[in-house]
Amino acid sequence: MTELNYALDTFYFLICGVLVMWMAAGFAMLEAGLVRSKNTAEILTKNIVLFAIACTMYLLVGYYIMYSSDAGGILPNLGFLLGGENTVDAVLNGGEDAPYYSARADFFFQVVFVATAMSIVSGAVAERMKLWAFLAFAVVMTGVIYPVEGFWTWGGGWLSEVGYSDYAGSGIVHLAGAAAALAGVLVLGPRKDKYGKNGAIYAIPGANMPLATLGTFILWMGWFGFNGGSELKVSDVSSANNMAQVLLNTNAAAAGGVIAALILAKIWFRKADLTMALNGAIAGLVSITADPLSPTGLGATLIGAIGGLLVVVSIVTLDKLKIDDPVGAISAHGVVGIWGVIVVPFTNGDASFGAQLIGIIGIFAWVFIASLIVWLIIKAIMGVRVSEEEEYEGVDLAECGLEAYPEFTVGSNK
Amino acid sequence: MTELNYALDTFYFLICGVLVMWMAAGFAMLEAGLVRSKNTAEILTKNIVLFAIACTMYLLVGYYIMYSSDAGGILPNLGFLLGGENTVDAVLNGGEDAPYYSARADFFFQVVFVATAMSIVSGAVAERMKLWAFLAFAVVMTGVIYPVEGFWTWGGGWLSEVGYSDYAGSGIVHLAGAAAALAGVLVLGPRKDKYGKNGAIYAIPGANMPLATLGTFILWMGWFGFNGGSELKVSDVSSANNMAQVLLNTNAAAAGGVIAALILAKIWFRKADLTMALNGAIAGLVSITADPLSPTGLGATLIGAIGGLLVVVSIVTLDKLKIDDPVGAISAHGVVGIWGVIVVPFTNGDASFGAQLIGIIGIFAWVFIASLIVWLIIKAIMGVRVSEEEEYEGVDLAECGLEAYPEFTVGSNK
Amino acid sequence: MTELNYALDTFYFLICGVLVMWMAAGFAMLEAGLVRSKNTAEILTKNIVLFAIACTMYLLVGYYIMYSSDAGGILPNLGFLLGGENTVDAVLNGGEDAPYYSARADFFFQVVFVATAMSIVSGAVAERMKLWAFLAFAVVMTGVIYPVEGFWTWGGGWLSEVGYSDYAGSGIVHLAGAAAALAGVLVLGPRKDKYGKNGAIYAIPGANMPLATLGTFILWMGWFGFNGGSELKVSDVSSANNMAQVLLNTNAAAAGGVIAALILAKIWFRKADLTMALNGAIAGLVSITADPLSPTGLGATLIGAIGGLLVVVSIVTLDKLKIDDPVGAISAHGVVGIWGVIVVPFTNGDASFGAQLIGIIGIFAWVFIASLIVWLIIKAIMGVRVSEEEEYEGVDLAECGLEAYPEFTVGSNK
Repeated sequence: MTELNYALDTFYFLICGVLVMWMAAGFAMLEAGLVRSKNTAEILTKNIVLFAIACTMYLLVGYYIMYSSDAGGILPNLGFLLGGENTVDAVLNGGEDAPYYSARADFFFQVVFVATAMSIVSGAVAERMKLWAFLAFAVVMTGVIYPVEGFWTWGGGWLSEVGYSDYAGSGIVHLAGAAAALAGVLVLGPRKDKYGKNGAIYAIPGANMPLATLGTFILWMGWFGFNGGSELKVSDVSSANNMAQVLLNTNAAAAGGVIAALILAKIWFRKADLTMALNGAIAGLVSITADPLSPTGLGATLIGAIGGLLVVVSIVTLDKLKIDDPVGAISAHGVVGIWGVIVVPFTNGDASFGAQLIGIIGIFAWVFIASLIVWLIIKAIMGVRVSEEEEYEGVDLAECGLEAYPEFTVGSNK
Repeated sequence: MTELNYALDTFYFLICGVLVMWMAAGFAMLEAGLVRSKNTAEILTKNIVLFAIACTMYLLVGYYIMYSSDAGGILPNLGFLLGGENTVDAVLNGGEDAPYYSARADFFFQVVFVATAMSIVSGAVAERMKLWAFLAFAVVMTGVIYPVEGFWTWGGGWLSEVGYSDYAGSGIVHLAGAAAALAGVLVLGPRKDKYGKNGAIYAIPGANMPLATLGTFILWMGWFGFNGGSELKVSDVSSANNMAQVLLNTNAAAAGGVIAALILAKIWFRKADLTMALNGAIAGLVSITADPLSPTGLGATLIGAIGGLLVVVSIVTLDKLKIDDPVGAISAHGVVGIWGVIVVPFTNGDASFGAQLIGIIGIFAWVFIASLIVWLIIKAIMGVRVSEEEEYEGVDLAECGLEAYPEFTVGSNK
Repeated sequence: MTELNYALDTFYFLICGVLVMWMAAGFAMLEAGLVRSKNTAEILTKNIVLFAIACTMYLLVGYYIMYSSDAGGILPNLGFLLGGENTVDAVLNGGEDAPYYSARADFFFQVVFVATAMSIVSGAVAERMKLWAFLAFAVVMTGVIYPVEGFWTWGGGWLSEVGYSDYAGSGIVHLAGAAAALAGVLVLGPRKDKYGKNGAIYAIPGANMPLATLGTFILWMGWFGFNGGSELKVSDVSSANNMAQVLLNTNAAAAGGVIAALILAKIWFRKADLTMALNGAIAGLVSITADPLSPTGLGATLIGAIGGLLVVVSIVTLDKLKIDDPVGAISAHGVVGIWGVIVVPFTNGDASFGAQLIGIIGIFAWVFIASLIVWLIIKAIMGVRVSEEEEYEGVDLAECGLEAYPEFTVGSNK
């Protein structure tokens, strides 16, 4: 172990963290492109502020909860702020337990994961939720709900003892975000103009497809940090090879997701629906996130492709169930997140279907129930839904006092 | 040779690959900004799907063709999938031939190059080509056409034996993409409303200049990976110095291209035409790509500046020839790509004008003829052009069943 | 000292430089989003061309002025172009003074800083300045004005002797850019429709909030390179730990800025004003830039939060003073830049309030006065302001001969 190893691993961690931070922009653009123009400024506000809240809450309490609690436990220790940084002496003379990258770099990498989980929520509750109700939820989600289940696996809690395997977080991050989103959507109800009489479902097209596409590309790029950094090490031959395999597979799965979703949309809807191709990319990425290392490139393509099929089917199904998710977040991160966790044992001999199932149930149950309680408390205190008039006029003017595109829209409230 | 060298070179390769992947977003935004709003969703679909196809086809066959064939050959071996990863033993005890970075990282870096070549095509055929005809072409281009000529130089084929010198691919990637685009444009013909009677040429302005500018900045950024990664190594003083020179020159050439194109446009058209400045940046980048290492910073600026002049002249000239290229891709990547290849011997003593000329002719002839045949076959089977009515209404609704900006445009079909 | 250390530090420098280059896109998007659609193409042109000019002028003269002058001096040496690259021998056998990263990588990192300083100016003078007057100023600013004050601290000039402490440039880059902008705004005067009779102030909303948000996220991301690279070294435990702390603090300060600005806007204006949240992020980043290493994460959050409050107060105050800055650049970079410099001694024992004050006065006085003179000379020669009619019609058509969104706007000149 040399100083150079430590430096390279730290640098690698930080660069991967920068890429994950960039995903916040991806979610913001994706969601802003998929809502109507009258609700765009508000969803941008949500996205940048939730990122700021996540960074602050995780610094104050979340990181401590997630990584300072007892091995094998269910309940985390409560505490505040970061621990100390590694000394040169600890690095060079620590033996097998010596830290091999900066504790601050670890925080930086972890904090952007929290924000990712929270970003998933904002899209699903778009176009009808009160801004400050959402921000209040963000405080609890990023400060407590996510860190507790993060501790269960990555912090050495009971799920890691059970053998639950989730490399970069198909379950821990994506399913968790989707579970919180689902609870929010159920408390909130659908948009007023989404479902008509006799089971009619109205398509509400997003206002800006280039933004949505840009957001997807940003997420695709940022995911290389998300999955690539989760190897935690790059400074020897085997770790470096692993990182390369992870990036290759992450990319292949996204590609598979795009192709499968596009073909299914073409067959099913007779059109090459761009939004399904975009959701296919995200589904491919979520699919491979629970184990981007074990599959071959071809295997990753197939795993991603099945994710791409699932997301299309799930979006249509949720719509029939009147679960109104304007951007498809619950499908892409939740349903496909479960697929990602379930498929791990097919290529990874160290994982078992039983443990994966326990992980899915444990994470979903905790995040969904805790979120539901928090949403209901927020509803009781301040309400979660804007007035009908505000929803009709758009939440931008009501919440933010400005319009996203003041010169472009022609006065219609379509 | 140590594990750390291997790790650093692998990490460097992967990060450069991430930057090149990001260029896919750049092409998508650039092209989406330069077409009309009624054709925007379709070109976005093309861009994300072509990237997915490129990644999948190159995994299945392209990489094998390009890198597993016989030294000095013209015809590649046909085969499938990746080879094995490097073992620790091979790395540490392989002597002079020991691999110094991950084979998977090599694939990851190469695969994003294929996508770049294909991205060049999508802009040139915009606003009138059938989506699925384009995707069918993408399968052949990324699976076979590009890998064959890629093998000729980078895979050790006959062009490398001849002494053809092309550091990061002004010819192998950019001219190749432009040659395929030219063949497509000739088969396809111009847009209906582009050329009038008596030689009239109608300007068709792009719908979204911020997007086009963003795309150019993304390409500029991604190009640091494109050229910087083509050094293939960073882990010793000389390689690190080379990478630094490459980034400095890449940046300087882009800057030179912007300034020269803007000044020429101002003199010629009396206006500081933003689209020419953007094309100038790309032209500068393409110009330096065949050798970003040998010139000084000042030399790189001048090489890029001449590229910036050429792209403006070429765009005007192609328009007069009624070769309708909505985004200027054939000019920026083809004409300027030739300039980039030709200029190498001026600063690099190891290159010769003869070999460069052979490279240009060989690459252009192969890609153009092969592409022409493929386009004609696709035309015979499924047609390449949308109906006149679809072209008038915009391909978004016809192909994708949605609009890119449903709330912004005021019903005009301008 | 080994070749690997040199390679890692060079690679780190280059990647940080790539991130800072990306900030150019951030400024372009932020400014394009905050102006009206009729002035969007021109501000995009400014942004990409100023970057090109900065790169070229800094190569020709700026870098030499900044880093080849006498220690402790006020007047720099004048000279041209780069020096030589480091030899392997100098690296390995240079002892304590051996260079530890590529001289070309140093240039690449520094050159993108110059462009950042210049990008600050373009937003403040938006919507009314002649394009070519602006570009002429950019030549002098990036070739001389910035390099001279850069030399004072980072080149070893008198400010470094005095003990002025400015890690990554809250003063040297951000205050300097804002001082040049202020001089420009004073020479130029406010937009015609900004201030009415009896002290009326008219809000002129920006045309594209998603672009402005994207620009802010890009700046946030790029700032990790801006501050992270300013450690200059990563290849040992202590440097790597420092880089990690710097990224953690940079992120925390931005988060603090967002939250504080949003809450203040909500209390003051009754609305969660998105533009204030965006300016809060930038203010947080500027606040921490003078010392992102010494504070704890919590300290950085607070420093950024105070910056976020300051930017809101400053934007309102400048408007009352009829200093018309369409994007808030003078507030976010100038007023907050001063705050960033002033706060350093609170957490960094090596800094003193006296030296910081001398730095602020020295930098501001030089850049403001030199800029004022240059602006006045340009005004005398070619004029700085477009005609009233051009301002009313928008500078896009007048200067660039095209529209940014030709299909979207409905003919209003709002």
